Amino acid sequence: MTVTKPQVMRAVDIKGGSGPASALFINDATPVPEVQSGECLVKVKAFGINRGDILQRDGKYPGISHLTKIMGLEFSGVIAWINEDQTGSTKYGASEETWKVGDEVFGLLVGGGYAEYVNVNTRMLVRKPKELSFEQTGGLCETWFTALQALYFVGGYKSGSTRSILWHAGASAVSVAGIQLSRDAHLPAGKLPSESESMHAAPKVFATARKQEKCDFVVNELGATGAVDLSEHPDKRSWAAKVRELNGGRGVDLVIDFLGGPYLEANLDVLDIDGRIVQLGWLDGPIAPQGVNIASILAKRAGVQGSQLRSRALEYQIGLRDFFVGQVLGGLVEGRFKHVVERVVPWDRVQEAHELLESNATKGKVVCVID
Amino acid sequence: MTVTKPQVMRAVDIKGGSGPASALFINDATPVPEVQSGECLVKVKAFGINRGDILQRDGKYPGISHLTKIMGLEFSGVIAWINEDQTGSTKYGASEETWKVGDEVFGLLVGGGYAEYVNVNTRMLVRKPKELSFEQTGGLCETWFTALQALYFVGGYKSGSTRSILWHAGASAVSVAGIQLSRDAHLPAGKLPSESESMHAAPKVFATARKQEKCDFVVNELGATGAVDLSEHPDKRSWAAKVRELNGGRGVDLVIDFLGGPYLEANLDVLDIDGRIVQLGWLDGPIAPQGVNIASILAKRAGVQGSQLRSRALEYQIGLRDFFVGQVLGGLVEGRFKHVVERVVPWDRVQEAHELLESNATKGKVVCVID
Repeated sequence: MTVTKPQVMRAVDIKGGSGPASALFINDATPVPEVQSGECLVKVKAFGINRGDILQRDGKYPGISHLTKIMGLEFSGVIAWINEDQTGSTKYGASEETWKVGDEVFGLLVGGGYAEYVNVNTRMLVRKPKELSFEQTGGLCETWFTALQALYFVGGYKSGSTRSILWHAGASAVSVAGIQLSRDAHLPAGKLPSESESMHAAPKVFATARKQEKCDFVVNELGATGAVDLSEHPDKRSWAAKVRELNGGRGVDLVIDFLGGPYLEANLDVLDIDGRIVQLGWLDGPIAPQGVNIASILAKRAGVQGSQLRSRALEYQIGLRDFFVGQVLGGLVEGRFKHVVERVVPWDRVQEAHELLESNATKGKVVCVID
Repeated sequence: MTVTKPQVMRAVDIKGGSGPASALFINDATPVPEVQSGECLVKVKAFGINRGDILQRDGKYPGISHLTKIMGLEFSGVIAWINEDQTGSTKYGASEETWKVGDEVFGLLVGGGYAEYVNVNTRMLVRKPKELSFEQTGGLCETWFTALQALYFVGGYKSGSTRSILWHAGASAVSVAGIQLSRDAHLPAGKLPSESESMHAAPKVFATARKQEKCDFVVNELGATGAVDLSEHPDKRSWAAKVRELNGGRGVDLVIDFLGGPYLEANLDVLDIDGRIVQLGWLDGPIAPQGVNIASILAKRAGVQGSQLRSRALEYQIGLRDFFVGQVLGGLVEGRFKHVVERVVPWDRVQEAHELLESNATKGKVVCVID
């Protein structure tokens, strides 16, 4: 089968280089990206919408402009063209994979997913299981890789010693994934709780949210141990005390925070000895108010670790990809891990998709599909 | 040889349980500590004076009162009595050690060193080399173990990737040790720089101090790459900029801080991507002023990790002891690592020793010797 590499494609572009959602349009004269050594070209079927895209659209994420100016951190699609050096098999993770034109795949990107074609390193590809749709897999990776990274790579989760975990913004996509991962983290990969005799007790998993309805959701639908409605605790020390109460009077071993500066001190309050805060965002602003107490950092031997996914080196991202395939993909196929796609939008309505995310009204993922 | 375990001893006590230096006295009717399984009893020759002792004297360190009420975090001496289960050899670290009554030893303690006798787990003992005196070894461990812990166990030093290290309070005992350890950290243990062909370049080692004389000392005597006199930089961002300038425009990979809250933001400023701050103290107070920026923690993937030595579990401290024997002891014997004892005081003048430390006028270690 002879395949010709396409030269021109349609891709989402931004009038004037940056601007609001209304500046988005489909540019049908976009050059198809170069395919580097080790890469293939994927014809995109679906892509997820992420907050990082909105930062990039607003001109606040210049970091990757040397790689691509096109938004899009995740995709699903079909391999359209493979660089010659990739026609053999590639060994990575525990498995050997051979890729060919026509294979259905999905994956994480540093950018470029809002387009008909995207270039991807083959070691970053995940084979799409037939049980999952392009719509589901197109918006999977950013969320689940971020949650995996926070829990294991940065949070240092260890069965037995990480006994309790708190996810802020519990109904956000990353925390929905993270709460489920935490709930089952003590189990060997691929085992149902009923089949497994784990050496360790399940970790206790807590969440915060800003509505009682969201708290009920994470407990009843996701299996969190308990959740605290922050709107009932305007004093930050008070929600930390409530989490401790739910945890039998103990602090928690790991906090994953997206809220930012205003929560730093209470996050330190809620920690147990040797606890760690993984800082992934600052939805409520970046500046900590006066009061962060270094003495408690020492007395608790506490750690605060900032992290990001997009800026990571390729090898790090490949490690996450392999971990995802081993630890998570089976659970998504069998339905043990729930991934909620809230809205699927044709990509010529990408403006609407951005506005939807900016409204903060969505609970699940917003995905665009390419006709 | 039959040895009788003594029952009563002299030990430094505090009139009224806590108080100023003038409340210290030698109580000659102190019970000799119980010797637990795995322990021996050491007749103390010398003990170092530490800031932790002063906190304990003032009643601000209640944490270990169930173990001992006696101050003293390090000692040198002679084994006076060994619990029966310790008469065989003990394998730990890379070596096998057999201990017997009369052996000359030194080590770290969680307390109890200000006394004629102290009980010590034999796995924490270090054999005193004949080249080092009881005065030198009695005040070694707290300083060098703390510096080792900060650089390796908490700071995660790795040859090649940890390219630059900043020690605050550069003329303090821990930083004097830490600067020397950092300077040689790329070398295989026990090798002189001249004998070794290290795979990696030496890390750049920076320090801050509050007098030009101290800055000159760390550069000329200890081999630091550069030092910044904080008294010339009342604006905290300005010293951070000066360190970056000395480091060729780059941030540093590791900051070890004893100063505390007021320096947290500038410590984040001075970090490079993936940098880490090890927080060991708060000499300038524990509260960070408003301004700590979570966004920079994310953007730099920065980490802040509090640590302590005294509260650590026995196994952790034994790991440090083994690392010290392998990595540092040879350098101290051959004089490559300098350990400065500033003053040796007979222990009946322990009040004077405390006052000396509280005056902040000492550069090296203050050690008490027992007659």
